[in-house]
Amino acid sequence: MTSTPKTPTADNLNQVLTNIDENLQTSISRLMAFLKIPSISTDPAYKHDCRTAAQWLVDQLNDLGFNASLRDTPGHPMVVAHYIVNDSTNASGQHVPHILFYGHYDVQPPEPLEEWNSPPFEPVIKTGKDGNERIFARGASDDKGQLLTFIEAVRAMINASFTLSLNMTLLFEGEEESGSPSLDAFLAENTNELSHDVALVCDTGMWDAQTPAITTRLRGMVHEEITISGPDIDLHSGLYGGAAINPIRVLTKILGDLHDHNGKVTIEGFYDGVNELPDETIAQWKKLDKAAHELLSDVGLEEPAGETGRTILEQVWSRPTLDVNGIWGGYIGAGTKTVIPAKASAKISFRLVGTQDPAKVLRGFRDFVSQRLPSDCTIIFHSDDPASGGASPALEISQDNSSLRQAAQALEDEFGKKPVMMGCGGSIPIVGAFKDVLGMDSILVGFALSDDAIHSPNEKYDVNSFHKGIRSWARIIAALGA
Amino acid sequence: MTSTPKTPTADNLNQVLTNIDENLQTSISRLMAFLKIPSISTDPAYKHDCRTAAQWLVDQLNDLGFNASLRDTPGHPMVVAHYIVNDSTNASGQHVPHILFYGHYDVQPPEPLEEWNSPPFEPVIKTGKDGNERIFARGASDDKGQLLTFIEAVRAMINASFTLSLNMTLLFEGEEESGSPSLDAFLAENTNELSHDVALVCDTGMWDAQTPAITTRLRGMVHEEITISGPDIDLHSGLYGGAAINPIRVLTKILGDLHDHNGKVTIEGFYDGVNELPDETIAQWKKLDKAAHELLSDVGLEEPAGETGRTILEQVWSRPTLDVNGIWGGYIGAGTKTVIPAKASAKISFRLVGTQDPAKVLRGFRDFVSQRLPSDCTIIFHSDDPASGGASPALEISQDNSSLRQAAQALEDEFGKKPVMMGCGGSIPIVGAFKDVLGMDSILVGFALSDDAIHSPNEKYDVNSFHKGIRSWARIIAALGA
Repeated sequence: MTSTPKTPTADNLNQVLTNIDENLQTSISRLMAFLKIPSISTDPAYKHDCRTAAQWLVDQLNDLGFNASLRDTPGHPMVVAHYIVNDSTNASGQHVPHILFYGHYDVQPPEPLEEWNSPPFEPVIKTGKDGNERIFARGASDDKGQLLTFIEAVRAMINASFTLSLNMTLLFEGEEESGSPSLDAFLAENTNELSHDVALVCDTGMWDAQTPAITTRLRGMVHEEITISGPDIDLHSGLYGGAAINPIRVLTKILGDLHDHNGKVTIEGFYDGVNELPDETIAQWKKLDKAAHELLSDVGLEEPAGETGRTILEQVWSRPTLDVNGIWGGYIGAGTKTVIPAKASAKISFRLVGTQDPAKVLRGFRDFVSQRLPSDCTIIFHSDDPASGGASPALEISQDNSSLRQAAQALEDEFGKKPVMMGCGGSIPIVGAFKDVLGMDSILVGFALSDDAIHSPNEKYDVNSFHKGIRSWARIIAALGA
Repeated sequence: MTSTPKTPTADNLNQVLTNIDENLQTSISRLMAFLKIPSISTDPAYKHDCRTAAQWLVDQLNDLGFNASLRDTPGHPMVVAHYIVNDSTNASGQHVPHILFYGHYDVQPPEPLEEWNSPPFEPVIKTGKDGNERIFARGASDDKGQLLTFIEAVRAMINASFTLSLNMTLLFEGEEESGSPSLDAFLAENTNELSHDVALVCDTGMWDAQTPAITTRLRGMVHEEITISGPDIDLHSGLYGGAAINPIRVLTKILGDLHDHNGKVTIEGFYDGVNELPDETIAQWKKLDKAAHELLSDVGLEEPAGETGRTILEQVWSRPTLDVNGIWGGYIGAGTKTVIPAKASAKISFRLVGTQDPAKVLRGFRDFVSQRLPSDCTIIFHSDDPASGGASPALEISQDNSSLRQAAQALEDEFGKKPVMMGCGGSIPIVGAFKDVLGMDSILVGFALSDDAIHSPNEKYDVNSFHKGIRSWARIIAALGA
């Protein structure tokens, strides 16, 4: 990228920001119109509404000067829009950066409807006791409000005649809330059109209402289901108890041995590929630890349950886990049945970090269990080949990434404080798809707050998130094109 | 008891045994008539049939010279019959022993009917490939055939003018297969009538078709259900995994620690009251160990899973156990749900031996669990006060008991080999009731075989069991009154 003189661009950017501030109510009105479309992707009854939402975006973007189109898939349509300022090189003969922006126009079903204080597809703005205005509607935060921050930023830049030196491709999906069944194929079929320098994804949150964040770590996952069998049939625990092996006892013993007394997973080689954090990140996360404690206290917990000596944020963002998600065996009805069951089962999942290999982790687990299996027991591992699906490695955006540094500086300029380099304990499949299919890194910037109630009744988006989000994207676009 | 000269009684006994042999077909016919009455206690549709079966016994016993009567209860009637040869002392001024014999005339429901080779209440005799005759019908073994061995023995003794020097009270219950709801109250209301020197119970089995047995050990039981709670709600394992405590992990760790690597229960004080076996019993059981292995191989197992260094029979008859009978928590449906559940539960039962105190065992378990419970977890122990019900201590008949020794000798005389002093891993509630309510020890002698299919389709009783059973009781009655 070029290093053009800073001052003219800064002046120009100020005009953009002023334009954003002055037109905030119009931007909000546009969001309200978008939110009225019940684009529920999981329910076939709303198929037409999904298409309407997609077309709404196409129209908005074509009006702005994008080359936007609705693109059919076996499911709901994609929206793809291009804004090409220069085909490949700028006036100085240098490469013009090209970003891919991603968001999704579909929303979660609103049920249970009776818990909404106002109808989910009749957006309203309410002022809270803290004086902050909030927009209530399904999709206000996830992801209509968030994706519109980007479009409104571009709109202001065009309105203010900002000299964009960045090519943009926008991709809006309509199936994110139903597992993105059409996405991978669509990316694969349109690689040339979609694969560019870096992806920008607006589907994540801020650290808190005052502190911006970039999500740079996504844990991977691999899972397994096991069934341990002992006797051929369920046995009477009086007649057999003592001599007949009890698969529940075997299962609990093995599962109980999977962590040591320091909370570390005891599977051999489990921590291969798990890296320590940069000092800077450790220092930043330590400062946040007190606030992070709310993650636990909000659900009635006090003590971080992970590895001893790790902060809460380390435990959920940068450390791998093994959790038993379900367990069952024997008699689980009311009352008593003194049975020694023929079998017992459990579902186990691993969250992965760094360069942990899902297949290797799964092999390590299977070896651990098999080595401890008494000779009278058999085991079934239910998972398919971990290489073939359901498993994903962790993703980390290097903090040396120049786009990341530019975005971080832009956020700091807007909020007056450095963004938190957050982890996300869960996975965001789109990021893996961009990496795997398009070969692109993603920069995840979003303005959602933890109390936005996404996927729940009374979803909301703070007007401040929307406003600062638009301003932030303007700064990021300017920075990436600078 | 007196020590009258042996020889005249022995001659007289031979006449009784001859009478038994000569009248076997008549005895069998009587059993067939009894088996035709569908006295299913759990099904109200058979209420009248239960009464018919009770009345059948009353009539048989009155014909024999007993003072027998049908005694109403809130459920099915009891049959009580007395045969008093001498009110309290014999001619020599010595105490005349008084036994209480127990059996039950009710039977299990016969379902599934389609699996019966002949109708369950139309008894038939079939000769097997091994040349042995077997009587097929519901109740053939459990317990109509067994209880009739005693009545037919008494009949032969009376027919042969054997000089009984034993008072007898017979108690037949009609609710054994439905949990004996009226029994304790009936015993308590009729203590003077029913409480005597020793109870004889015919509801157990032989070691094998050639080897008689006396069941001298019944394990006790106490059970518990626990629920461990962690977070207030089910959590997403991506967002919380690592930092939030997982109740399944806590539960499996605690349950997995309840046994050491030698299969011993690790609860402090658990083995208090557990006694080592007499050398004689150890020697006898060791001889049986190879045969006992079938207990395991029949259900697909090879290795005794109990305490290291104990034989299979020790493990199931004379050692206490802790078994998890059921476990559940988290997501147990099809597929994957990466949840950290709010709670996890298990049902646990203990089989007790010796003088283990059920309440103390339960307290020990609760302490064990509570001491290992992380501060962020809570636990509910679901069991009521273990003193108030559902718990029973083990029962052991001392091998120094003179009635036991006499019965053992009588069985040895009949079968030509010493009876096995068996344990029973399960409980037989009537024995506890006789001990607790009537203050009597029980001697458990029975002639059932492990392939009798009690509670199953095609229940049978070997004619040989019936025949040798009648002869055995004649010998035991003679011995106890000698």
